[in-house]
Amino acid sequence: MPDILFQLKAVLRCSGSLEPIKQELDVFVREPARTLLKRGAPPGGGAVIEAWDVAGNTLELELRSDRFVRVHDALLRLKNELSRLLARHRIGIRDIEIKSYEISLEWDASIKLGRLPFVRELKQDGGRLILVLDVDYATLERRIPDRLLKLLEEKKEAASWKGKSEHWELLFESGSKPRGFDKDPTEEMVKRGWIVHAAGRGQWIYGPQLTRIFRAFERILIEEVLKPLGYEEMIFPKFVPWAVWKRSGHAKGIYPEIYYVCTPKTRDPGYWEDVMDYYKITNEVPVEMIKERIEPVGGMCYAQCPPFWVFIQGRTLPDEILPIRVFDRSGTSHRYESGGLHGIERLDEFHRVEIVWIGTKEQVIEHAEELRMRYRRIFDRILDIEWREAWVTPWFMAQEGKAGLAELKEVGTVDFEAILPYSGKWLEFQNVSINGDKYPKGFSVKLQSGEDLWSGCSGVGLERWAAVLLAQKGLEPGRWTDAFRRFTGDRLPEVFRFL
Amino acid sequence: MPDILFQLKAVLRCSGSLEPIKQELDVFVREPARTLLKRGAPPGGGAVIEAWDVAGNTLELELRSDRFVRVHDALLRLKNELSRLLARHRIGIRDIEIKSYEISLEWDASIKLGRLPFVRELKQDGGRLILVLDVDYATLERRIPDRLLKLLEEKKEAASWKGKSEHWELLFESGSKPRGFDKDPTEEMVKRGWIVHAAGRGQWIYGPQLTRIFRAFERILIEEVLKPLGYEEMIFPKFVPWAVWKRSGHAKGIYPEIYYVCTPKTRDPGYWEDVMDYYKITNEVPVEMIKERIEPVGGMCYAQCPPFWVFIQGRTLPDEILPIRVFDRSGTSHRYESGGLHGIERLDEFHRVEIVWIGTKEQVIEHAEELRMRYRRIFDRILDIEWREAWVTPWFMAQEGKAGLAELKEVGTVDFEAILPYSGKWLEFQNVSINGDKYPKGFSVKLQSGEDLWSGCSGVGLERWAAVLLAQKGLEPGRWTDAFRRFTGDRLPEVFRFL
Repeated sequence: MPDILFQLKAVLRCSGSLEPIKQELDVFVREPARTLLKRGAPPGGGAVIEAWDVAGNTLELELRSDRFVRVHDALLRLKNELSRLLARHRIGIRDIEIKSYEISLEWDASIKLGRLPFVRELKQDGGRLILVLDVDYATLERRIPDRLLKLLEEKKEAASWKGKSEHWELLFESGSKPRGFDKDPTEEMVKRGWIVHAAGRGQWIYGPQLTRIFRAFERILIEEVLKPLGYEEMIFPKFVPWAVWKRSGHAKGIYPEIYYVCTPKTRDPGYWEDVMDYYKITNEVPVEMIKERIEPVGGMCYAQCPPFWVFIQGRTLPDEILPIRVFDRSGTSHRYESGGLHGIERLDEFHRVEIVWIGTKEQVIEHAEELRMRYRRIFDRILDIEWREAWVTPWFMAQEGKAGLAELKEVGTVDFEAILPYSGKWLEFQNVSINGDKYPKGFSVKLQSGEDLWSGCSGVGLERWAAVLLAQKGLEPGRWTDAFRRFTGDRLPEVFRFL
Repeated sequence: MPDILFQLKAVLRCSGSLEPIKQELDVFVREPARTLLKRGAPPGGGAVIEAWDVAGNTLELELRSDRFVRVHDALLRLKNELSRLLARHRIGIRDIEIKSYEISLEWDASIKLGRLPFVRELKQDGGRLILVLDVDYATLERRIPDRLLKLLEEKKEAASWKGKSEHWELLFESGSKPRGFDKDPTEEMVKRGWIVHAAGRGQWIYGPQLTRIFRAFERILIEEVLKPLGYEEMIFPKFVPWAVWKRSGHAKGIYPEIYYVCTPKTRDPGYWEDVMDYYKITNEVPVEMIKERIEPVGGMCYAQCPPFWVFIQGRTLPDEILPIRVFDRSGTSHRYESGGLHGIERLDEFHRVEIVWIGTKEQVIEHAEELRMRYRRIFDRILDIEWREAWVTPWFMAQEGKAGLAELKEVGTVDFEAILPYSGKWLEFQNVSINGDKYPKGFSVKLQSGEDLWSGCSGVGLERWAAVLLAQKGLEPGRWTDAFRRFTGDRLPEVFRFL
């Protein structure tokens, strides 16, 4: 048995009786069809007609193949040739019914599978997996069986990663710095009233002191990195419709972490009157009534740069405007993080400056290096923190549900990690990523010269920077560097007091 | 018949037979009960026991009342007294069943009603409305009938507003200014590539030029208004859970316009595997599968200041820290606006600086005036635009679905409106609102002295400011004032070009 075996039974219903041309069909099946179903396959491979029969207007077909001319491809080929043959007798093919479609392939029995789309039955038999599909002809035209096999390949690959950690390779260490603080900065900030937990999960309200620190980070970033490197500010959208995540690849894997967004089916107030009435009478929001009246259309900002790409989607850029360098700091990002209490290190709602550069491969790689050197200056001279840098699985692979080794040497992510003295753990607080041609391809952006267009992005998480700085240096401005105090002032604003 | 008539039939099930004490019950009904059900009502008013009967362990009651001691209140009073009486015979009340509950009230037949919560049947009969309720004893304890009547009052009031426009009273006019531009600025910006429509509804991606203008507005606001008036920046949450909108009042009426937010029922990847599989096989996001796996928990930022109030919710403030002055510019606001194409004047996703001040009544009123004068200087000297100011229905009344006259002289909203030469229409681009004690009450914030705490807020819509400035002055920096160009620079950044 070949490593993979496809079997298909189909019935073609025609506009006239096939009985009178049975002889001609027999000739067709013997020769042109036989060659047709082997075309492109290596010797001995391809599809074959295992059986066929004519009854009145119908032609029944049983096909079998290996991986080379898969039975659904074979059926498409036969349909085209038969159409031509039948046309000579003024007969047309009205409809094609798929009676059965089975795939049998070699499979490691230890890899468990749940329900699969378009699969009616799934059997594991020794070293083989049998899939009984539930498909119609339109589904075959969309090549669903091919995508199903690709999915199985991915699951096999994912299983082989299981237990293995993500790729992590040390690139740089700042060396240790004197530490003067060993408390959890979130707890300290709560005590001092700098932050208050908001009404939502993993969400805080930032008082004037921490906001001052965040804005200092932004100004440092602008003065030390973005202005010198020629960046201009843009405003990226913060609601992300499916269309964007389909192109960016996030639609493959981020479902467990999305803050989903739904819009009303209509904004007619009459449609919503009973919801309002229910609330006014009970003081409870009628969630079940609302569910029926809204439609999921996407999610809240997750990765920040994908919705930018619509700005240049489908366009061709002149080479001389490269490298493009833009950044966005216009809103929040949201991820449904794992439960339990966290400090500002892991949040459902957080604030990030997103930096995007686009150019030729050489430009993008060179720029990533410049960016890294600029960041180092900030961490070394202004924040004076202890950190290290590592080459890791690219963020977009992780977010698409891929893991394991970063096979590529040039495409990938550098994570910046810093030690949190209160826990002894290293926290990723920054990244610089070279995304290759992923986004230009996904959003169909081309270069006039025809050369490959590449891009990179880097996310500066303000909460993460704060978590690192405050964990290592404490909350007293006196313990920070003069260079940092130039941005925060010597005293942080005090607005609130409570009894 | 009184203007409003309540009728209730209930059955009390007890732990022992009531037959032996029928005589005593008769005495109870004749006297203490009669007085009990009139207590607090004006002469001739209150509730009466119309009929009663005992059979084994049960007591059947028929009550009737006007608006003064409503039958459900009467039932609660009777239950308490009866419990005491029965206790003397070692009998307890096990359960109270509501057999029927009807309300009949005077009603203007021209006001149509749809389905109402807790109402099984609704009849309009001449000048009266009959409501047959579907309630149990727990519902009566929650005083649902009272809230239902309040809702009917609101609907009556709303019907009387119908067709009437919102309150609008001119306060100030800048006088006309020379105009040099008569095009739609959105169309002009699209032509020049300053903005590109994003993938979502009513959503744009802002290129470097318009972003420069937005940031100029922010810096003007900070230098001319916020710093001189003693404001400090905070960061308000941008996902808003129901709990916040319940306290702010928005849960009463904004349902048709919310961008709803739902969270996954779990972030277990196994729970989402079939969704990912479906996407990978079909390249379509399986919206129906997603619907079953998410739960509505609130919405995206709508009014911006409500989630701030959780910072001080339930606290008591010392008087000497007043007035509190804070602002937020940390993210987007989202409203499901009416369909069709709009420019940047009406958007589903927009950017706003939200300004909040809190103090005694006098402080809040005085501060609103200072703020207005500061805004005027900007519009007059820096933007040099033509505008007017009007006293209108407070924004929070509008957002709670209330309309009509602003009854109060001190609580209310001043709208700033500017002429758009290309359409000849006035656009509201700014407001200053005195919200009275609404938010401190809603979020239980108190003042040490016991004096009333008031608050105000003002939203600066960056898109609206841009729409007004660009519509009146055009897109060429040369046509703007020197004072404004000091913030934007003489040339706007050019980053992109397309073939």
